[in-house]
Order: sequence, then structure tokens, then C-alpha cells
Amino acid sequence: MQPVGFDRVTLTDGFWREVRSRNADVSLKNVYRRFAETGRFSAVRCRKRENPPHIFYDSDVAKWLEAAAYLQKDHPDEAVRAVIDETVDAIAASQLPCGYFNSYYQVYKPDKIFQERTEHELYCAGHLIEAAVALDACGVNAKLLRVAEKYAQYIYERFYVKRDAGFVTCGHPEIELALVRLYEHTGEQKWLTLAKYFLDERGTRAEAIYPTVDRTYDQSHLPVREQREAVGHAVRAFYLYTAMADVGRLTDDRGLTAACEALFQDVVNRKMYVTGGTGSSNVGERFTIAYDLPNASAYSETCSAIAFALFAGRMAKIRNRAAYHAAIERALYNNILAGESLDGKGFFYTNPLEAHADFARYTRTLPDAPYQPLLERVEVFDCSCCPPNLIRLFAQVGGFAYGEEDGTLYIHQYISSQVSACGCELSVVSEMPFGGKAEISAKGRGRLALRIPTWQCSVSCLVGGELCVPETKDDYMYIPVEGDTRIALEFEMRPRFVYANEKVWQDAGRKAVEYGPFVLCAEQAENGDGLSGIEIPSLEHAEVVRGEEGVTVKVPARRLISDGALYSYLPPEKHACTLTLKPYYSWANHGENDMQVWFL
Amino acid sequence: MQPVGFDRVTLTDGFWREVRSRNADVSLKNVYRRFAETGRFSAVRCRKRENPPHIFYDSDVAKWLEAAAYLQKDHPDEAVRAVIDETVDAIAASQLPCGYFNSYYQVYKPDKIFQERTEHELYCAGHLIEAAVALDACGVNAKLLRVAEKYAQYIYERFYVKRDAGFVTCGHPEIELALVRLYEHTGEQKWLTLAKYFLDERGTRAEAIYPTVDRTYDQSHLPVREQREAVGHAVRAFYLYTAMADVGRLTDDRGLTAACEALFQDVVNRKMYVTGGTGSSNVGERFTIAYDLPNASAYSETCSAIAFALFAGRMAKIRNRAAYHAAIERALYNNILAGESLDGKGFFYTNPLEAHADFARYTRTLPDAPYQPLLERVEVFDCSCCPPNLIRLFAQVGGFAYGEEDGTLYIHQYISSQVSACGCELSVVSEMPFGGKAEISAKGRGRLALRIPTWQCSVSCLVGGELCVPETKDDYMYIPVEGDTRIALEFEMRPRFVYANEKVWQDAGRKAVEYGPFVLCAEQAENGDGLSGIEIPSLEHAEVVRGEEGVTVKVPARRLISDGALYSYLPPEKHACTLTLKPYYSWANHGENDMQVWFL
Repeated sequence: MQPVGFDRVTLTDGFWREVRSRNADVSLKNVYRRFAETGRFSAVRCRKRENPPHIFYDSDVAKWLEAAAYLQKDHPDEAVRAVIDETVDAIAASQLPCGYFNSYYQVYKPDKIFQERTEHELYCAGHLIEAAVALDACGVNAKLLRVAEKYAQYIYERFYVKRDAGFVTCGHPEIELALVRLYEHTGEQKWLTLAKYFLDERGTRAEAIYPTVDRTYDQSHLPVREQREAVGHAVRAFYLYTAMADVGRLTDDRGLTAACEALFQDVVNRKMYVTGGTGSSNVGERFTIAYDLPNASAYSETCSAIAFALFAGRMAKIRNRAAYHAAIERALYNNILAGESLDGKGFFYTNPLEAHADFARYTRTLPDAPYQPLLERVEVFDCSCCPPNLIRLFAQVGGFAYGEEDGTLYIHQYISSQVSACGCELSVVSEMPFGGKAEISAKGRGRLALRIPTWQCSVSCLVGGELCVPETKDDYMYIPVEGDTRIALEFEMRPRFVYANEKVWQDAGRKAVEYGPFVLCAEQAENGDGLSGIEIPSLEHAEVVRGEEGVTVKVPARRLISDGALYSYLPPEKHACTLTLKPYYSWANHGENDMQVWFL
Repeated sequence: MQPVGFDRVTLTDGFWREVRSRNADVSLKNVYRRFAETGRFSAVRCRKRENPPHIFYDSDVAKWLEAAAYLQKDHPDEAVRAVIDETVDAIAASQLPCGYFNSYYQVYKPDKIFQERTEHELYCAGHLIEAAVALDACGVNAKLLRVAEKYAQYIYERFYVKRDAGFVTCGHPEIELALVRLYEHTGEQKWLTLAKYFLDERGTRAEAIYPTVDRTYDQSHLPVREQREAVGHAVRAFYLYTAMADVGRLTDDRGLTAACEALFQDVVNRKMYVTGGTGSSNVGERFTIAYDLPNASAYSETCSAIAFALFAGRMAKIRNRAAYHAAIERALYNNILAGESLDGKGFFYTNPLEAHADFARYTRTLPDAPYQPLLERVEVFDCSCCPPNLIRLFAQVGGFAYGEEDGTLYIHQYISSQVSACGCELSVVSEMPFGGKAEISAKGRGRLALRIPTWQCSVSCLVGGELCVPETKDDYMYIPVEGDTRIALEFEMRPRFVYANEKVWQDAGRKAVEYGPFVLCAEQAENGDGLSGIEIPSLEHAEVVRGEEGVTVKVPARRLISDGALYSYLPPEKHACTLTLKPYYSWANHGENDMQVWFL
């Protein structure tokens, strides 16, 4: 299955075009502004300054360049273009004659180049390569690709030919998937060879790790083909698995693809929040044990959800399954979207599923404060990987919608858009994510495969106005296209309870509410205090209200009210109330407040 | 209300006599052995050694001496006596001519004596004074009292007369309550003056605190009379409040007693676990905000429960209320008892209300492991304040049973015992805590006041075989004693649900089960995995089984069983099962396993 690249998908009116426009008009520029103010863009000029830059500032800039590249076609912008060109020129000018480029090591630790495994050099190189491929593929700037190839050549020489670097694999995977992209863009075999080499070597020797972590942290506890359980730092994990899936597919390496499938299953069946979040612990930003999914302290890094979606997309390229796209949908509409504020300016690094604002405020007063997730989004972090990761993801979101396989055009996500593929001219006008209807017009000769979302309660399908029961297999409906074919689809979308496996001890006895692809939440702002003590007996009389800002769901509920004592032999009374639920992604846009996903 | 001292109460057959015997025969000796092995007893000789002792080793030894003193009457032991005398001699020999004694400062930091507020010098002095008073009062050893008085005199000179010490109040309250004890034992006014001075000065100036904490940590954020909310390190808090109650009572200081009453109410109405535990956070071992009572990470230090019971006892001396004794009962039969293993050898420092053994085991594999409570008791800790605190508490537990006021003999706790007070010779034969019956024989002329426990479902009272409806006021039943009076009491004891206030977000929608004074829990050993997903619809058919080891309760329950997916639109099935509950205090006596107090 080949995805139809986002560059071939024209977003039309709808949810994602709005997100993408906001991304181009607000987020891209605001992230640039904050990155420029914090010295990230000037750092690439490799001039010494008072405060050394963060060791992975380069990757922040590279991810911004990648996002900017993707947005130039639909949202051309002279000023952005100028920043791209200037930045690329600065990087090219700073690149050492040998090909090496790293604004931290060149300036502050030139004697330590390729000596410190944990310090993200190859991670930064990977993002530089990804940016270069993007800029070249989008026809925005070809110069960075030459820089990247020269750098990749130097890495190839040092790590693969001479093998004289101070370490073998990078402490933070990323270079591997980037090299695959470079290989796929240029056709140059050695980049794939090097990517495979890095994968083959990981976990085969005792390499340096941070003193505070164990070997699972960067997934070097086992050779990658033997890995079956998702462990360690979640973003590292998914970047690694993404590369494993790529190399497995390109080299038909069943050892890699089998490991990837097991890892995917381990995540979706045992270690994923209902929001698509992963990596439950702030300690090492990592996976813990199966079913340990605390809500208030959920780490669920935005980057981890993004990386999980990338991994799932790569898995679909090996052998398509609706489950991969269901996972992408879950992450995309919940954890990933939640990463950004509705105004496009603020970002969450972590994404808890429950917020206790009073407790957070109290905790901040302590000098010895334990970890507490932020309850309001901010414009930039010291470690600001998530904001540019979000803008590059939102810039290419159309690429999640379609796939081509054996002449069949697959629709994985119903995003209002136009596309030409597999002999069909396709136009999709979709209510999703706010409603369940989609109008699909296809011209040409071919076949469509329409994914049936997991959240639908029933499906109705009219082809040319006639009720149709399409051939259905593995959660796809197959509909032939002959000439002008009009399909009116409706996936019945209504609020549904979702229950966690009882092994998830934090959620036992509770339920979340989903509406279409959205996980819903309640906030204190609309519902007052005491969200943990709200019981939703039924969704039968839930009222779905579609307004300007999307959708809210009003549900008759009951509020537990005790007799006021701390402990009582009397059960709490249950007072009828109306609970206002909203999509999880839209929480925390009106100041710090309590929030809850799992209800009684 | 004056409590009848434990030395006047003869424990007869029953629960507490067994605990006290085990305390004398096993715990006292085992704690001595481990303290000797770890160098605590030799430290008082003040000889330099390779590894400096902990800054409060002296307090460990002092608390052991105090416990040993209390146990000599009923459990005389030559070897223990010899250790007492040798230790006292060693302390006396090490005491500086000025009166100062501290095995850490004298040997390792003599130039810093009374210069470092946070380092527990006066805390150690306080425990030394308490031990000295105990040894003298019990007629075991009079020498330590002279040492203590000389040391107290030196403290008085430095802190109150010359005021030339490097700080004004100690970073860990304890000296204050110890000075009151010394005053009450000797009648020497200046000890009360000094205690009051330390209380008066706390919170009135910016004194040194640990750099990692704020001023609430040691309750120096406000003058003590202005304190209304229990904050900071829980043990520090209760030692301070205990002294405030003492001084308030002895000096009729309404400012102090009003503060104490508010603090007591704040704890029992907003910050106390159902087990009587307090101080919910491991970070600073402290109180957090109202209603923040996490179960799995509950800190609930054993010492804090002990100190809370001491504070409640002191409050009853100001103005008796049944609520103080209900609080003592809750702490005593749950958090405090849980601090020690059934064999008397192991101790818990922290007392969680929920255990996830797999998660704990996983966490221990991490070099960057976050705090996890121990799930098995150990014989000694580096910071081993709890074990000797428990043994001194268990040694004087009879002192919680009775009180005298205006010629009325109060029974606060029904402990099988004999006592002579208020003109009555009293004998209590009590089934409690395992059953609700008590036979009370009184001879003489006077009046009894019998506390009605909060947990009873009904009361029956026979006096001289005749059904009696005694005069009842504020949870005490008043019964005149004339001649030979036999009272057959029965408090109906059956398993009851207890509900937390809905503001306790961790417990919302759940309930605990109490049986008499015991909070019950379920362990994995008897109930298998998945305790969090067990629902107890009713206690109607609960079966109480009284066996050798106490009591277990078998309850028809339902186990949530999902369809196996991590998330499902299908509600979990409910499979009938029998849940075996046991008193919380007896958990974790058969290896690490899961445990749960709050059920669906």
C-alpha cells in the first residue's frame, strides 16, 4: 500500500483545511518568532555566544524548515521563503569542509564530535536530512539537500566505512528513518545500507547511556529484531520502530516487520491511552508496564503521539490494515490535536487525561515540587521538540487520507479533499470529524476501498442514490467506479461509552465518552467542581450540539454529593445535572481548570 | 480530662496484651539488634568512626530507651535492663561538661553546635528528655533524667537566657513537647517557659529551612496561634501541635487551643486517610491540599499516624470529645498497627492504601525510579524513626483506654484490662476489635462514661442483666456505679461501607469496607489479580470469619471482565466472585502483592 502523498491531496473546505490554514498563517510564523527570539535560528550560524544553545536546537530549526517546505505550495509566503533561504544559506556556510554540521558541537565541543552517543548529534542530522528532502521534494530549496547529502556521506564514512566514531548507534533514533527518506528521495543505495546498519547494530553491544537510565530507555536492550515489547522513551521508540518498518519493507526483512507488528500490537493493546497517547510516565518520558495508564500524571508527549501516527502509517505500507488507520485517527483527533491551542499559538508537551488545577497550583508553590503537567499551553519550551513537530505534521495531514494498492484507491480518513489516483478523480466532502456523512464523487474507472471507522454505530451507503451493500472485507467497503460515481456515505455517529480493559487499574469502573473520532472530556469551566464524582448512567438522551467551535455533547448525568463529612457510612446522594462534554483536543483553551475523561 | 496512664492499666487477655507481649518479646529486642548492628547504640559513645552516624541516631536510641522503660514493669528483662543502664552510662559519660549531648555534632561538627537549625539537634534532645522522663517515671533508671535536666538547662541558657544560638526554633519540632513532659514530671517551671518560648517564636521570623522546601515545611510560615491549616511535613506538624495543645492547656492559652482545634478539624475533615494516615505526599513527607489523598502513592508515614494519635490524646486533655478518641481508634487499628508485621520484626515507614506489585517491581529496575512505597516491611531503615516510635507507642497503648474527669471514669477504647480510678475498680473483658461485646465489672461508687464507637450499628446495654437505656450525651453513655455493677455491652459490629467525600477525587465512586474499628482491604494472595475492577454491590451477605489470625470477611462480589481489548464499546461483564477482605493492618505479611482498600 502506497499512501497518496499530501502534496497530491488538495484539502477543500472543512476541518483540516482550517487547521492547515491556521498552521500556515499562525503557528508556523509564531513558532518561527519564538524560535528566533530564543536564538534557535541564529544558532545555525555557528558563532559563539554567551549561553550555549541547546544540544538539539538544530532539530527544532530543521523541523520548522520541513513544515515551511510543505506549506509553500498552498500557502506561499515571501517572508517565510526568505527565512528558509537565509537559514539554508547559513547552514551551508557553517557546514564544515568534511560535511559535518552541528551548531552545538562545532562551536562548543569540536573535540567531541561523534564522541558522545547520548547527545543527539545524529538525531539533529536526521532532522536536517528530513528538512532537506522536504525542501527539495516541494521544489522550495534544493541547496539543503546538497548539504544533507554531504553530511550523510560524512556520517557514512565515519560510522560505516571507517567505523572510527566514539559510538555506533545514536542515543536518540531519528537518523535511521531520515536516511530511508533520503534513500527514497535520491535512490542512493548507501543511505539505506547505513540506515539498516544502524538498526542492525542497536542492542548488540553495551553502548553509553545516560547514567540515570537503563538500557531499555533508548531501546538498546535487545537487538531490534528481538524486540517485542514497547519500552523506554516513547519518542525514541517510535522513531526507531518507524525506521524498522521502513527498512523491513524496503529490504523485505521479515525479522524487522515481525518485530514491528508485535510492537504495534503491544502498544495498541496494552500501552496506549484512549486519546492515542503513549509513554505514560514523566520519568524518562517513557513506557512503563502494560496497563499502567495514570490519567492525571499521564505524560503522553505530543511528539510521541505524532511518532506513533508516523509508525502506524509506515506499518500500513508494509501490509495495509484498517487498524493502523484507526490508530492514526485516534492519535490525530485526540492527543495530537490537543498538542496545540485553538488559536494556533500555544503547545502542550504533555497531555494528561485528568487535571486538578488546585493541586497543580499548590504544587507549583513548592521548591521541591514533583512533576506536574502544564495545564495551559505555552508558546515555546526549553526542550521545544513538540511545537515544530506539530506544525510539520499538520502540514502533511492530507497524506493520511488515501492509499493506493493494486489499482484500488483507499480512503483511510474522510477529509474533505480532492485527489487523483488509481484512475479516479475523487472529490470527498466530509462532515467528519463533526458528523458522520461524506459525499464522494468519483470519475474514471477503478475501485474505491472505504474504511469503516471503528466508532460508527451503523453504516449507510448510497451509490448513485441507490441503497448499496458494498462488498466489505476487513473493515473496508469496496465500491467499483465506472464513469461518474456518486457515493453518499453515512457512518452513524453518536456519543458512545468506551470502557477500558479492567487491567487498566486507573480506569476500572469508569467509562469515557467518544463522539466519532473524538474522545470527549468535561472541564470545570462548564461543569463546576467535582468532575471525578460525576456519573453518566446513560447516553440515550445525550444531545449533540454543533456550533461554531465544533461540537459539544450535553448529557443528563448525576453528581455525587456526600453529607459533607470526609468519610461517611451514608452513600453520597446523586443529584441530577447536565454534563457538558467537548472534544478532548479543545480543552484548556480558557485558562487552567479541572478536566476529566473517565467518568463513573 | 486526665488520661489514666498506661502504667495504671493492667492489660488482660486480648488483642492488645498480645501486641504488647510481642512488642516486649520480639520487637524491642529485634529493633535493638538491628540498631546495634547499624551502629546506633555505639554512636552514643561519641567516638569517631569511619562512617559518621545519621544526624538523628540519638533519637532512635532514645525512643528505644523510652519503649524499654515502659515495658520493664510487665516484661522485666535482665538483658534489656543491662542495655538500658549501659546506654545511659555511655550517654552520661559522653555528655559535655556544659550539658550538651549529641553524638553527631560532638564528634563530627563540634564547631557547629546549635548553628544548624535544620539538623535535628533539639529534636534529638527532645527524645532524650522523653526517654529520661520515661526511665525515671517507670523507676527503671534515674540517671538519664539528671543528664537530661543538665542538657535542658544548657538549652535554656543558650536559647532563652543568652539567646546566642544560631537559630531560635528547631527545624523539627519535638523539643517543645518533651520540655512539657519534663515540666510535668519535675514541676520545674522553666521547662514550660522554654517550651512556650519555642512555640511563641516559631513563624515569627525568617529562619533557615532546607533549600528544597518552603516555609510551610516545618510550620514556620505563620505564628503558631495563626495556623489553621495542617501543612508541611506531617510528623513535624503533629509534634508541634501536640506541644501547642500541651502548653495551651497548661497556660490556659486560648490562642493555642483554638489553633489546635482548627488544625485537628482540618486534618480529620479534609486531610486524613480512612486508615488514619496523614501526609499524603512523599515529596517532603507532607500534607498537600485538602482532599488530595492518593492511594497507591499514599505516604502516610507510620510516625505521622502515631504523632496524630498523640495529638488527639492531648486534645482530649483540654476538653474531652469522643471525636478525639474515634480519631485515635482509626489511626491505631489501621495505619499504626499496619506499621509492624505480624511477627513483630518488620516495619513500614509508609502505608499506601493500594499496591500494584508488578508496577513496584518494574519501578525498582529503573535507575531513575520515582518514589514507590515499599510493599514489604523491613527490619530497619536508614532513616529509622518509625520502628522505635511504634514500639514505644505499643508499650503505652493502655494509656489510650481510660480517662478521669470530675469523678467520672471514661472508657474511650474497649481494651481488655483492669484499672482502678475515680473510686471504681474496673475490669473490662472486650471482644474488640474482633467483636462488639464487652463485659464490664465495676466495684465501688462512681460513674462510668462509655464511648459509643462511630462504627457501631446499634448498641445494647445490660446492667446487672437488665436491659438499660443509659443517659447518653455526645457519644458517651453514662452509667452510675454503685457497689458491684456488671455491664454487658454490645456494639453491633458488622461490615459497613464507608464512602469518601466526593471531593476526594481518588476515591470518588468507590467505597471502603469497615468492620468495627478496622478498615478492610483485599490482597492479591487471596483474591487474584485485578483488585481495582472488583465491585461490591452489597454487604448484606458478607460472612465474618473469626479465626486464629483475627478476622476475615467474605463478601459476594463481582469482578469486571472486559472483552480483552484495551478499549471496547462493550461494557465489561460482571462475574460473580467471593472477595476475601482482611483488616488493613494485616496486609503484606506474605510477600509483595497487590492490595486495595477502595472498591467499586
